[in-house]
Amino acid sequence: MSYRLEELCWKELAEKQKTSDVVLIPVGSVEQHGYHLPLGTDSFVAKALAEEAAEKAGVIVTPPLWFGWCPHHMALPGSVSVRAEVLIEYLYDVIESLHTHGFRKFVIINGHRIVNIPWMQIAAQRAQSKLLCKAVIFDPAYMSKDLIPGLDIGPVGHSDEIETSHLMHLHPDLVHLEKAVDNPVKETPLYSVDPQYPNDTLCYVPATKEHTAELGRISGGTTGSPSKSSAEIGRVYHEHLLGNLLRVIESLKAV
Amino acid sequence: MSYRLEELCWKELAEKQKTSDVVLIPVGSVEQHGYHLPLGTDSFVAKALAEEAAEKAGVIVTPPLWFGWCPHHMALPGSVSVRAEVLIEYLYDVIESLHTHGFRKFVIINGHRIVNIPWMQIAAQRAQSKLLCKAVIFDPAYMSKDLIPGLDIGPVGHSDEIETSHLMHLHPDLVHLEKAVDNPVKETPLYSVDPQYPNDTLCYVPATKEHTAELGRISGGTTGSPSKSSAEIGRVYHEHLLGNLLRVIESLKAV
Amino acid sequence: MSYRLEELCWKELAEKQKTSDVVLIPVGSVEQHGYHLPLGTDSFVAKALAEEAAEKAGVIVTPPLWFGWCPHHMALPGSVSVRAEVLIEYLYDVIESLHTHGFRKFVIINGHRIVNIPWMQIAAQRAQSKLLCKAVIFDPAYMSKDLIPGLDIGPVGHSDEIETSHLMHLHPDLVHLEKAVDNPVKETPLYSVDPQYPNDTLCYVPATKEHTAELGRISGGTTGSPSKSSAEIGRVYHEHLLGNLLRVIESLKAV
Amino acid sequence: MSYRLEELCWKELAEKQKTSDVVLIPVGSVEQHGYHLPLGTDSFVAKALAEEAAEKAGVIVTPPLWFGWCPHHMALPGSVSVRAEVLIEYLYDVIESLHTHGFRKFVIINGHRIVNIPWMQIAAQRAQSKLLCKAVIFDPAYMSKDLIPGLDIGPVGHSDEIETSHLMHLHPDLVHLEKAVDNPVKETPLYSVDPQYPNDTLCYVPATKEHTAELGRISGGTTGSPSKSSAEIGRVYHEHLLGNLLRVIESLKAV
Amino acid sequence: MSYRLEELCWKELAEKQKTSDVVLIPVGSVEQHGYHLPLGTDSFVAKALAEEAAEKAGVIVTPPLWFGWCPHHMALPGSVSVRAEVLIEYLYDVIESLHTHGFRKFVIINGHRIVNIPWMQIAAQRAQSKLLCKAVIFDPAYMSKDLIPGLDIGPVGHSDEIETSHLMHLHPDLVHLEKAVDNPVKETPLYSVDPQYPNDTLCYVPATKEHTAELGRISGGTTGSPSKSSAEIGRVYHEHLLGNLLRVIESLKAV
Amino acid sequence: MSYRLEELCWKELAEKQKTSDVVLIPVGSVEQHGYHLPLGTDSFVAKALAEEAAEKAGVIVTPPLWFGWCPHHMALPGSVSVRAEVLIEYLYDVIESLHTHGFRKFVIINGHRIVNIPWMQIAAQRAQSKLLCKAVIFDPAYMSKDLIPGLDIGPVGHSDEIETSHLMHLHPDLVHLEKAVDNPVKETPLYSVDPQYPNDTLCYVPATKEHTAELGRISGGTTGSPSKSSAEIGRVYHEHLLGNLLRVIESLKAV
Repeated sequence: MSYRLEELCWKELAEKQKTSDVVLIPVGSVEQHGYHLPLGTDSFVAKALAEEAAEKAGVIVTPPLWFGWCPHHMALPGSVSVRAEVLIEYLYDVIESLHTHGFRKFVIINGHRIVNIPWMQIAAQRAQSKLLCKAVIFDPAYMSKDLIPGLDIGPVGHSDEIETSHLMHLHPDLVHLEKAVDNPVKETPLYSVDPQYPNDTLCYVPATKEHTAELGRISGGTTGSPSKSSAEIGRVYHEHLLGNLLRVIESLKAV
Repeated sequence: MSYRLEELCWKELAEKQKTSDVVLIPVGSVEQHGYHLPLGTDSFVAKALAEEAAEKAGVIVTPPLWFGWCPHHMALPGSVSVRAEVLIEYLYDVIESLHTHGFRKFVIINGHRIVNIPWMQIAAQRAQSKLLCKAVIFDPAYMSKDLIPGLDIGPVGHSDEIETSHLMHLHPDLVHLEKAVDNPVKETPLYSVDPQYPNDTLCYVPATKEHTAELGRISGGTTGSPSKSSAEIGRVYHEHLLGNLLRVIESLKAV
Repeated sequence: MSYRLEELCWKELAEKQKTSDVVLIPVGSVEQHGYHLPLGTDSFVAKALAEEAAEKAGVIVTPPLWFGWCPHHMALPGSVSVRAEVLIEYLYDVIESLHTHGFRKFVIINGHRIVNIPWMQIAAQRAQSKLLCKAVIFDPAYMSKDLIPGLDIGPVGHSDEIETSHLMHLHPDLVHLEKAVDNPVKETPLYSVDPQYPNDTLCYVPATKEHTAELGRISGGTTGSPSKSSAEIGRVYHEHLLGNLLRVIESLKAV
Repeated sequence: MSYRLEELCWKELAEKQKTSDVVLIPVGSVEQHGYHLPLGTDSFVAKALAEEAAEKAGVIVTPPLWFGWCPHHMALPGSVSVRAEVLIEYLYDVIESLHTHGFRKFVIINGHRIVNIPWMQIAAQRAQSKLLCKAVIFDPAYMSKDLIPGLDIGPVGHSDEIETSHLMHLHPDLVHLEKAVDNPVKETPLYSVDPQYPNDTLCYVPATKEHTAELGRISGGTTGSPSKSSAEIGRVYHEHLLGNLLRVIESLKAV
Repeated sequence: MSYRLEELCWKELAEKQKTSDVVLIPVGSVEQHGYHLPLGTDSFVAKALAEEAAEKAGVIVTPPLWFGWCPHHMALPGSVSVRAEVLIEYLYDVIESLHTHGFRKFVIINGHRIVNIPWMQIAAQRAQSKLLCKAVIFDPAYMSKDLIPGLDIGPVGHSDEIETSHLMHLHPDLVHLEKAVDNPVKETPLYSVDPQYPNDTLCYVPATKEHTAELGRISGGTTGSPSKSSAEIGRVYHEHLLGNLLRVIESLKAV
Repeated sequence: MSYRLEELCWKELAEKQKTSDVVLIPVGSVEQHGYHLPLGTDSFVAKALAEEAAEKAGVIVTPPLWFGWCPHHMALPGSVSVRAEVLIEYLYDVIESLHTHGFRKFVIINGHRIVNIPWMQIAAQRAQSKLLCKAVIFDPAYMSKDLIPGLDIGPVGHSDEIETSHLMHLHPDLVHLEKAVDNPVKETPLYSVDPQYPNDTLCYVPATKEHTAELGRISGGTTGSPSKSSAEIGRVYHEHLLGNLLRVIESLKAV
C-alpha cells in the first residue's frame, strides 16, 4: 500500500491512520537557484526527504506544498512567492483537515531553509494551540549542524555547494554544474544566518528584490561555491538528514 | 528542455518565456473518491491534462496546487479542504508572481469540477483587473459537453463512470474497480449540476458534511455508476479534453 | 400582515416564523445597462421575484442587497461594485442573523446572473456548514433554461432582449427602448456563458474594465438585440420564473 | 429625471454628475423597535431624509444600505446585524465606486443613531484619505440638538417618542401605537448618550444581547415614552432635519 | 505592591485579581502637537490618569498602548498612525488575554479624544458580546463637560489651552509654551466636535493629511489658544477627570 | 534634547531626523516570568537596551511595544498575548508611519527571545520590500552567543539565570530572587532552541498552554537555574549586548 496520501483510497487511509497518527508535510519553494539548479530545488529536497522517511517509518506523507515565501528572489525569472500571511492560513487548513481525520502529530519538512520558517512557526503554533496536536518543523540546514563541520565545505549560501551536492544526489539530470558560478559567502560579522556560525543570529529578514537583482548580475543568483559540490557529499548529507528525520518521527510516535 | 516550471533553471525559463507568455496552472483536490479511486483523483486529472498540453503546445506548466475546496467531503477520511477565501489569495499570488516575470495569459486547469470554480473565478477576475492580464478557467465537465451525450453513460456524479474511466486511462494502478459501489444519480428537478442537463442550474452550493457522511454509508462516497467504466471511455474523454485545451491555448496565443 | 421583514414588528415576525422557517433574500447589482435600462435593473428583477413569491408562498422576504459584484462594468458611470470578498462576509452575516431567530432555509435570489454567483456559493456553503441550515441560490438565467428555446430570442447578453422585456413588464416607466442599440452576441466557440448553449462553460471570469469601455463605445454597454423585446415576452418569462421559484420554496418547506 | 441612482440610465447619471458631484448614501438598520414600530424603522428614516433632500437639492441618492451594526439587538427576533468590520469595507467600496465616476462629496445619512457611527467614521476617513474626497456623516439625533429642548419630550431612548413620532409622520400605517409600552429612560450619571445632556459622553459601547433580552421582557425593547408621540412632533422634527441636511449639502456644493 | 501589571510577578497579580476584577487600559497617540507640546501628549494624559486612578482605587493598570489612530496628523513629522482595523484587533486581544485570567471589567482610558473612540467602541463591543464582560471608554473631553464652562477657555481644538494646561500640570519640562502659536478655533455651524457645543455633532471624520499640512503652515499644527494656558487650569482639570474616573471605577466595582 | 520620540515636539524630531535616519523600536512581552521576575521583564530588557543605545548613538527610540506573542504563557496569570497576525500589521504600521517622515533604517529590538521573531521577520520583510528601507532585528539571545560560553551558566530557559541576572542589573527592586525555583533545562537531543547549542534547530514552535500549566506546577513557570544569577553577570551581559547593538547601529549609519 502506498504511503502517499494522494494515492490511497479513503478506506486505505483510514486503515493506515489506525497504525500511526503521524503525517509528514513537505513544503518547498519555486525560486531562482542560480544558473545551474532548477527552480523547484527546495521542493525536490522536501519531497525526497519526506517520501523516503514516510516509506521507512510507515507513516503518511501529503503531496508537497510546492510554493513558499521568497519575496527576495522575485527579481529573477520563475520565482513564485506567496505572501507569508496566506501561507499561514493555507498550511493551517491542511493540518486542520488532517486533524479532523484523527492525525495528531505533524512534521512540516522544509526544503527552503530559514525563509519559510517564520510562517511555519505561526501556523504550527496555532495548530498546536487550537487543535491540541503536536506540530514540529524539520529544516535541513539546522538538522545538519553536527555533520557539516566535517565536510570541508563553505558556509550556508544559496545554490551553494551543499544544496548543489544534494540535488546531484537526488536529481543529477536537473543539475547543470558546468554553468555554475562561484560567489563565495562574505562574512557579515553581526548578522550571519549560517547555523554553523558562532554568531548566527537567526533574526534573518529576507533581502529586497534589489539585492537579489544585484546578486543575479554577479553570479546568476548563487552565493557560495557550487564548484566544490559532488554527488557523494550530497549522499552523505541526505542520509544524515534522513536519519535525523526518522529519529524525529520515532520520538513523536513515542509520545 | 522541460516544460515544467520546477525543472527549469531561471535562465531557461527566461528563454521559454520569450516564445510564449502562456502558463498552465493545474489545480485539483485531495478528497474522498469512493472505495475505488485515490484521494488525489482530481489533482491527477488536472496534472495530466496540463502537462500533456504544455508539452504539445510548447508552453510552461506550474507544479499542481494539490489542495482545493471540498468542505462537503470532510466527512470521509483523507479529504483536505482549504477555505475558499485562502485559495483565492493563494492562486492570486501564484499568478501575480508569474506576471512579474512577463507571463500574461493564464489557463487555470481544474480537476475538481464545479466546487473549485467559484474561488477560481474571483482570483482570476482580480488578476485580470489588477494585472491587466488574461486568466481563463478550463473545467473538464464543462469542456466535454459536446462529447458526453454520445458516450452512453449516466449523468455527472462523484467517482462516477466518467471520472473512473479517466483514471483507468491515466493511472490504472490506482483504480480498484472491484471495490466500487454503484449509486445512480437521483434526479433533482430544479437543482441539477450536470452540464448535460437542460435544467443544470450552475448555482451549486456544496452539501454539508452530514450529507457526505450519509453518502459514505450508502456507497462509500460514490454517486454514479462506476461499474460502467472502461479505460477506453477514459481515453476518448481525455483526448477530447486535451484537444479542447489545446484549442484554448491556441486562441490565447492568437490574442 | 406584511411579508416584508422591514415592515413587521418583531412580535409579528416571531409569529410568522412559527409558520415557516424560509426566508427569501433578493440580491441585485447597480450597474450600467446600456442606453435604455436603469442602473438598478438587476436589483429590480430580484426584488420583484422575491416579493411576489414571498406573498404567494406566505414566507418572509428581506430588503434587497442592492449592490453586487460587477468590476467589469466600472468603466461606465453609475456602476457600483463591492469586492466579492466583502459580499461573502456581508451575506453570511445576514443569514447568520436570521438563523439566530430560528430561520433555517434561505433562498438567495440573484438578479445579476452569473457574476454574483461565485461569492454567493461561498457564503451559502459557509452558512450551510457552520449553521447547519439550507441555503440555495435562485438565478433567472439558469431557472429559465426550459422556457427560453421556445421564445425565439437571441442568446444571453447584457441589457439584451430578455432582460429588457423583463423590465418592460416590471417597470415600463424605467425603460427607454427608443435609445437601445442592438449589438448581437458574437459566438465564442469554447467560452460561452449562455445556459442554453451546449457548450456553455460556466467558468466565466468577468471581463476587464477595458472590455466594457469598448462595449460602451459600440453600443452603450449592451450585448444582444433589445429591439426584439416586448412586455409580453417579459410577462411570460416572469411568470415562468415565479413558478419555478415557488416550486423551490415548496420543496424547501417539504424538507 | 429621477434623483435615484437605481432608476437612471448611465447616460442620465453622467449628465446629472456634471451638475453636482454630491451623492447621498442612506444607511439604516433592520432591528427590533419595540412592540409598535417596524423592524426597518432606522432605514425608513434614512431613506426618507435622503430622498427628499436629493430631490430638493438636485443631487443623487443611492439605494439604502438597509442593514447596519446592531449586535445588542440580536436578542429579539428580526434584528439583522452585520459586523462593523464588514460594513467598513462595504461602505468604502460603494464610495470608491462612485468616486470612480467623478463624485467627490458624500453625505452618509444615518438612520440608526450612535451605533452606526463608529464604522461610518472609519470608512469615511479612509475614503477621504485614499480618494482625496469629502465624506461627512449626517445623524438625526445630533442634527436636532437645537430643536429638541423646545419639544417637551424625554431623553433619547430606543423606539422612544421622537422616533415613534417620526415614523407616524413618515409611515403612519406601519406604527402600532396601541401596542407601545412606556419605559422611561433611567439616568446614568456618567454614561449618557443623549446629545441633549450636558454629560453626554459619546463613548457609547453597544450593550450585550443579555441586556436587550431583559429590555424585551420589560417593554418589548422600548426605552422611552412612546405614548407621548404625535405625527405633528414627527413633522416638525422631520422638517428640521431636512433643513439641516439641505444646509449640509449646500455647504458641500460651495467648497 | 505595585498596581502596574508589568511590575508584578504573576503570583502577585493573581492575588490582586482576587480583590478586584477591574483593569484600566490607557491608550494614547504619538502625533504632532504643535510647536510646543511633545508628540506623546495624548499618551502621557492617558497614562497619568490611569496610573493615579489605579493606585487610588486599588486596581490594576496595564502598560499604555502608546500608538493610536491619527491618519490626519501624518502630514507633520513624528506622527505614528496605526490603522483603525488593526487597533481593533490589538485592543481586543489585550482584553481577551486579561479576561482569561479572570478580569471582567475594563476601563479603556483614551488620551486622544474623539479620533480613537470609533475603533475602541468596536473592540469594546466585541469584548462585551464575545466574552460577556463589561468594557467602558473614558474620554477626557467628554468627561469634563460639566467643568469646562466654568473655566473661561475656548472650545476644543488641538494642542489647545486645555491640553497645554494639562501637560503643564503633568510634565512641565516637556512644554515649550514660548513656542506656541495661537490659532483660534473657527466656528463650523453644523459640524462641530466640541462636547460643550449645543450643536456638537459627534459624527467627526478625521481630516485629510492635506488639511493638517495647511494647519502646520499656519500654526505648527495647533488649533486653539495655548497662550491662555496655565498649570493651575491643568491641575483643576486633572483633578476633575480623576474624580470622574474614580467614580466610573467605583460604579463598575458595584456591579 | 531627548532621544525619546514621545518627548520631542515635531520640530525637534524633524531636526534630529536630519542627522540620522535610524530609529530603534523596542518590542517586549508581558508574560509570566516565574515566581521571581515581573511580568514585564522582556519589555524592560528591550526598553533599557534601546534607550541606552539611542542616547549613546544619537538616534531616536520609539516608545516600547509592550505586548508580544506568547500564546504558550497564557496558562499563568498576567500574560498578555496578541495574535502574531495582528502584531505583523501593527509593527508594519509603526514603521510605515516613521518612513513617511524620512526614517529609512529600523532596528527592532526584541526583549522576548525567539517567540517574537517570526512575526517581526514578516513585518520587517514587508517594510523592506514595500518601503525600500532597511529593517533589522536585534535579539539578546542570539547577539550574545560569543559571550555566554565564558560565563559558566546553564543553557537558555525561561526566567533563567541570564534573564534574572539581567533584571538584577536593570531593576533590582523588581526581582524577588528568594522566591525563585530552579528547574534545570532538560536536554532534547533534536529540538533545542539555545543558540549556544551545536544542535540548536531554530525551528521552535511555542508550546501549548497545557505545557506551561505543567511548568507552572513544577517551578512557577521557570526553566533554568535562577539561583546562579547575579547582578554582575547581568552587567557584563548588558554591556556586551549594548556594545553589539551600537555596532549594528553604526553599520546601518555607514550604509
